[in-house]
Amino acid sequence: MREFLAVDAGGTSTRAVAVDSEGRCLGYARAAGGNPTAHGADPAVASVGAALEQALAPSGVDPASIELVLVAHAGGHARYVEGIERHLAALGVHAPVRTAGDLLALYTSGTHETDGAAMLAGTGAIGGAIRGGELVRTVDGTGWLLGDSGSGFWIGHHVARAVVDDLDGGPPTRLTPALLARLGLQHEAETLVHGRPPVIGRIITMLNEWRPVRMAEFAPLAFELAGEDDVADEILRGAVAALAALLHRVRQEQAVGPLVLGGSVLIKGVLPLDASFTAPLLEAIGPSTPIPVADGLVGAAVLALRAGGVRVDAELFARVTSGIRAAGESWGAAPA
Amino acid sequence: MREFLAVDAGGTSTRAVAVDSEGRCLGYARAAGGNPTAHGADPAVASVGAALEQALAPSGVDPASIELVLVAHAGGHARYVEGIERHLAALGVHAPVRTAGDLLALYTSGTHETDGAAMLAGTGAIGGAIRGGELVRTVDGTGWLLGDSGSGFWIGHHVARAVVDDLDGGPPTRLTPALLARLGLQHEAETLVHGRPPVIGRIITMLNEWRPVRMAEFAPLAFELAGEDDVADEILRGAVAALAALLHRVRQEQAVGPLVLGGSVLIKGVLPLDASFTAPLLEAIGPSTPIPVADGLVGAAVLALRAGGVRVDAELFARVTSGIRAAGESWGAAPA
Repeated sequence: MREFLAVDAGGTSTRAVAVDSEGRCLGYARAAGGNPTAHGADPAVASVGAALEQALAPSGVDPASIELVLVAHAGGHARYVEGIERHLAALGVHAPVRTAGDLLALYTSGTHETDGAAMLAGTGAIGGAIRGGELVRTVDGTGWLLGDSGSGFWIGHHVARAVVDDLDGGPPTRLTPALLARLGLQHEAETLVHGRPPVIGRIITMLNEWRPVRMAEFAPLAFELAGEDDVADEILRGAVAALAALLHRVRQEQAVGPLVLGGSVLIKGVLPLDASFTAPLLEAIGPSTPIPVADGLVGAAVLALRAGGVRVDAELFARVTSGIRAAGESWGAAPA
Repeated sequence: MREFLAVDAGGTSTRAVAVDSEGRCLGYARAAGGNPTAHGADPAVASVGAALEQALAPSGVDPASIELVLVAHAGGHARYVEGIERHLAALGVHAPVRTAGDLLALYTSGTHETDGAAMLAGTGAIGGAIRGGELVRTVDGTGWLLGDSGSGFWIGHHVARAVVDDLDGGPPTRLTPALLARLGLQHEAETLVHGRPPVIGRIITMLNEWRPVRMAEFAPLAFELAGEDDVADEILRGAVAALAALLHRVRQEQAVGPLVLGGSVLIKGVLPLDASFTAPLLEAIGPSTPIPVADGLVGAAVLALRAGGVRVDAELFARVTSGIRAAGESWGAAPA
């Protein structure tokens, strides 16, 4: 039996599995965020190392027999991969380490087909066209300052601006009391300063001290008011239009094949909105049924198998998926 | 004769004058930026002190006879005013120091009337309603992250996003070669990475290292292409709409009286556009002729006189204005 390790090193958490060439899940673990850009190389390496160690320990697999390790992550540093290799060597794993982009891993978590499209909207927003198992076109994912239109940051930023505008005499919105409650601020019964409520100044001071990407925390306020508040609705329609435009651009490059979707903003926020909001996105999705995925771990495992020369067909893909799902659900439960 | 000092402490430069109660300009000087928020309290105090010292030195005025000092500036710190008082004491000036907001000083640079409106668009965008010589309503000026719609930052930020979008397969725009030239970047004849030009990554890296307000440096690229590029035109129309909305909100509070306008983006960028762009703003301005001003120095001098109980009518206002203008034009010329 041939054995592999795979890691999905995300911003919030890191997941690792040991799999064999039959698609069985031999070990599974989770650890803290392992993205080197978000966390710094050393803490990210520590998270990836911890996840790998815990996935390997109960698996019964001889570390020396591991054939290949695949690490799926965004960004990337030489020092990051070297750090992971050192960690593995200390565990007795001397297999080569391969890396893959997080978007390709996400896509490959949804399908064994090697031609298709993926779109992810969480804090950021990014899409990709996949052909021959490779990412051949990336769209957006260019960050909060210069891109990521329709993302959680984009929605939350528009929410914060709309609230400041409301307090400054602009269109009233129920986003205002919701955001003030979220920030623990009040503005009733205050003396106006230069004709406007001083709570504006407190919001500005508070939010300018945040890392800008934290604006994504306000995105749920818009989703909660969908259909009940004109300002929230306009923000959400803008986000849907941006994500639809992103997907159209991806589909210009790769018109056929499955569409894999990921990211909490897209899966839990945008897609559940009613069709009066989502029509432009549904039109961009077209007749096929999109495949939602939670993360890129199955994809990392499949990419590990493929990098080892294993042909992953529909049957093997289904086995990898169900094994990892079962391991994820039981992980952390008290031993029997 | 009663004598006063006045300072307009801006982000880019600081201007100071010595004036008498007849409106004569007795001394004038410029120094580096004196805004405590932009520069820190100590460097700002040093600039204000240098400007005051140089305005006072050749005036022939006995420092001990100065009746009052008025400092117009944005933001404000107790330590800032104390620092200026110490500087003045070292010069032999023991008069009380009063402060005024930069928006009120700007308004008062344009008119002796005490009821009216002001709007400024430079890096930021702010408007105010003035009644009885006091600022009774402020609109916007809430900073690049949460407001300042239609400002130099807002325009420049939209330019940068439009360029990244163009390079990423979005609507083509002549802003792209203009911005790349401005940044010293090239993107011809490069191998695509994941189906897009790697220059996108270089723009993202470069601009994310900037202080965000520097995006305002790109605003001129949009003005240069006005009427010649659909993407630039759309950005400019958005800015005009935002500034028109700002002015409408100010005029809801104070419908009558003169309108004073300032800020390089508004004066040198927006207002010279042809009427196909500026119609919504011209409609908000209404039938009266707006008064453009370069800075808040005349206003600071007028506010100093008023704080000393001097009644500033049209005639005295004209004398202050022409005296300061002449002093400003001859300042820095070689002595005869």
